[in-house]
Amino acid sequence: MKRRSFLMIAVASPGMVLLNGTGGTGVSGAALAQSDPLPSWNDTAAKQAILSFVQAVTTEGSPDFVTPSERVAVFDNDGTLWVESPIYTQLAFVIDRVKALAPDHPEWASTQPFQAVLENDLAALSAAGEEGLIELLMATHAGMTTEAFDAVVTGWIATARDGRFKRPYTELVYQPMLELLAYLRANGFESFIVSGGGIEFMRPWTEAVYGIPPQNVIGSSIRTELRMVDGKPVLMRLPQVDFIDDKAGKPVGINAHIGRRPIAAFGNSDGDYEMLEWVTTAEGRRLGMIVHHTDAAREYAYDRNSPVGRLDRGLDDAATRGWTVIDMQADWGRVFGFDG
Amino acid sequence: MKRRSFLMIAVASPGMVLLNGTGGTGVSGAALAQSDPLPSWNDTAAKQAILSFVQAVTTEGSPDFVTPSERVAVFDNDGTLWVESPIYTQLAFVIDRVKALAPDHPEWASTQPFQAVLENDLAALSAAGEEGLIELLMATHAGMTTEAFDAVVTGWIATARDGRFKRPYTELVYQPMLELLAYLRANGFESFIVSGGGIEFMRPWTEAVYGIPPQNVIGSSIRTELRMVDGKPVLMRLPQVDFIDDKAGKPVGINAHIGRRPIAAFGNSDGDYEMLEWVTTAEGRRLGMIVHHTDAAREYAYDRNSPVGRLDRGLDDAATRGWTVIDMQADWGRVFGFDG
Repeated sequence: MKRRSFLMIAVASPGMVLLNGTGGTGVSGAALAQSDPLPSWNDTAAKQAILSFVQAVTTEGSPDFVTPSERVAVFDNDGTLWVESPIYTQLAFVIDRVKALAPDHPEWASTQPFQAVLENDLAALSAAGEEGLIELLMATHAGMTTEAFDAVVTGWIATARDGRFKRPYTELVYQPMLELLAYLRANGFESFIVSGGGIEFMRPWTEAVYGIPPQNVIGSSIRTELRMVDGKPVLMRLPQVDFIDDKAGKPVGINAHIGRRPIAAFGNSDGDYEMLEWVTTAEGRRLGMIVHHTDAAREYAYDRNSPVGRLDRGLDDAATRGWTVIDMQADWGRVFGFDG
Repeated sequence: MKRRSFLMIAVASPGMVLLNGTGGTGVSGAALAQSDPLPSWNDTAAKQAILSFVQAVTTEGSPDFVTPSERVAVFDNDGTLWVESPIYTQLAFVIDRVKALAPDHPEWASTQPFQAVLENDLAALSAAGEEGLIELLMATHAGMTTEAFDAVVTGWIATARDGRFKRPYTELVYQPMLELLAYLRANGFESFIVSGGGIEFMRPWTEAVYGIPPQNVIGSSIRTELRMVDGKPVLMRLPQVDFIDDKAGKPVGINAHIGRRPIAAFGNSDGDYEMLEWVTTAEGRRLGMIVHHTDAAREYAYDRNSPVGRLDRGLDDAATRGWTVIDMQADWGRVFGFDG
């Protein structure tokens, strides 16, 4: 009884549970199956895939049993845990930062790609390509200390609103995935974010929003360097790419940070293909899932031809790979916490 | 009462406690102070510095109280948690590996620095310098998958013996530091290793020996790359240095892996100076400690002129920095678990 009520609290209010730390409770899969740990998931094959996987790896004596310290799960962030359409949230941050910093950079009014941002000229911004994007990233993400950047992100994420839902981006997280994170946590899993997005852009808010502390966030990074400023050490963010945590970089980042091969992986785009492959081709019971954005009414619908979160090869290969495709429209009873 | 008995178990047998996971118990410092969580520490200022720090940061209502998720401690490994004299354990591994691999490399018999290793010629090895050492590292650490390297380290660490104590290196860990790790864990701390040594050389055994899981190990690294071998993805270890986690690199590595500034740091050499400085110059109650090797009878005695674990600047500045120097001979009642 006590276990069931803990779980019900976990599902009703993930935020409260998060305050209790990241350790597992050792509750068995069998005990959990008696209540509904995933109430925002419809009773379809996707939900069943999660429940049967967790039951198998947490039931002692099961041939698939996995000791708690090996219960590592990895989650992509953009499009898997929160909204990435119509533009990545970090790009919205870049655009806002360029506009905020523009008064100190009068030259930006006539210099690309800054001019494109200031004039909301998406065609010119697109024409600037990856090189232009990196220039914007460096102008907004480097040249300050890690603590100063943390403060900038914290301030922005607290006040910025998306264009469609008019809500903070931290409310545009998928309720079914919050329930999944809480369910895995209650079953002794440790979850990590493995995102192509900037590691320092995520860390200031992931613990409050997902219950994932900064040390469990893996992402792309720029170099930092220790310097003395006014007699005190600071870490200065340099305008140099350090690591790109996307595609074949994801298994590399997972190994560098975790040093242990996860047993479950969740993604939504072809950028997650190698991570899913790395996780699910290992020996033993494994779970690979892909969030397929099929719900234009409640969220967005896109896949093969999308400029964000392109999902093409993953859709083709999911069945033969044994990956479960989550059909957002059919499999999720609720998308956001603020949905009715 | 229940809390005290948990702690007594923790101290008597850290290994058992480790199996219970890394989460804190939320036991308050005040409750812990009533028993002796650090029985291998003599009743000196060093022990008192630990006890009063932990009590201050774990007592709710204390001006120094730190919320559990911020209770992060960092430990150097070589010379701080285990023996590093007369040579770093990883160098002993390199030497053994060169000898083991030599039959496949007949050219090594007449090629430096390999010849020096095969002939136990320390003068020639020393003459090869850092460049020679890196060549030896790459020949023994790269050119195989991460899983293959894990297996090599696991096999070596299980069978190798040091020259003086004739024991496995994993028994040459300092009993007072194991007690400290268990004490911090019981008080809601999360501890990380931050070592100049190779990250993949430590991860295979740190959880069993220290209760520190692979994801909490930070170290120097070589690059890895995702490749397909026989249709399955592997991470291949490349002969290229990726990151040196020493001196000014330690705060960089801490930030990259943890994303949170620790509140306690433990080191033993000038390679830990910047880490200690980074941790202890932040706002709030902080703890910085240096293990000073003063005990030639039970372990080793060295500092300013040592080829391993050189401690010079740290000794000069400890008092003004507020760092506590642990005098191994005076402060530790027992050095190793196998001591009487």
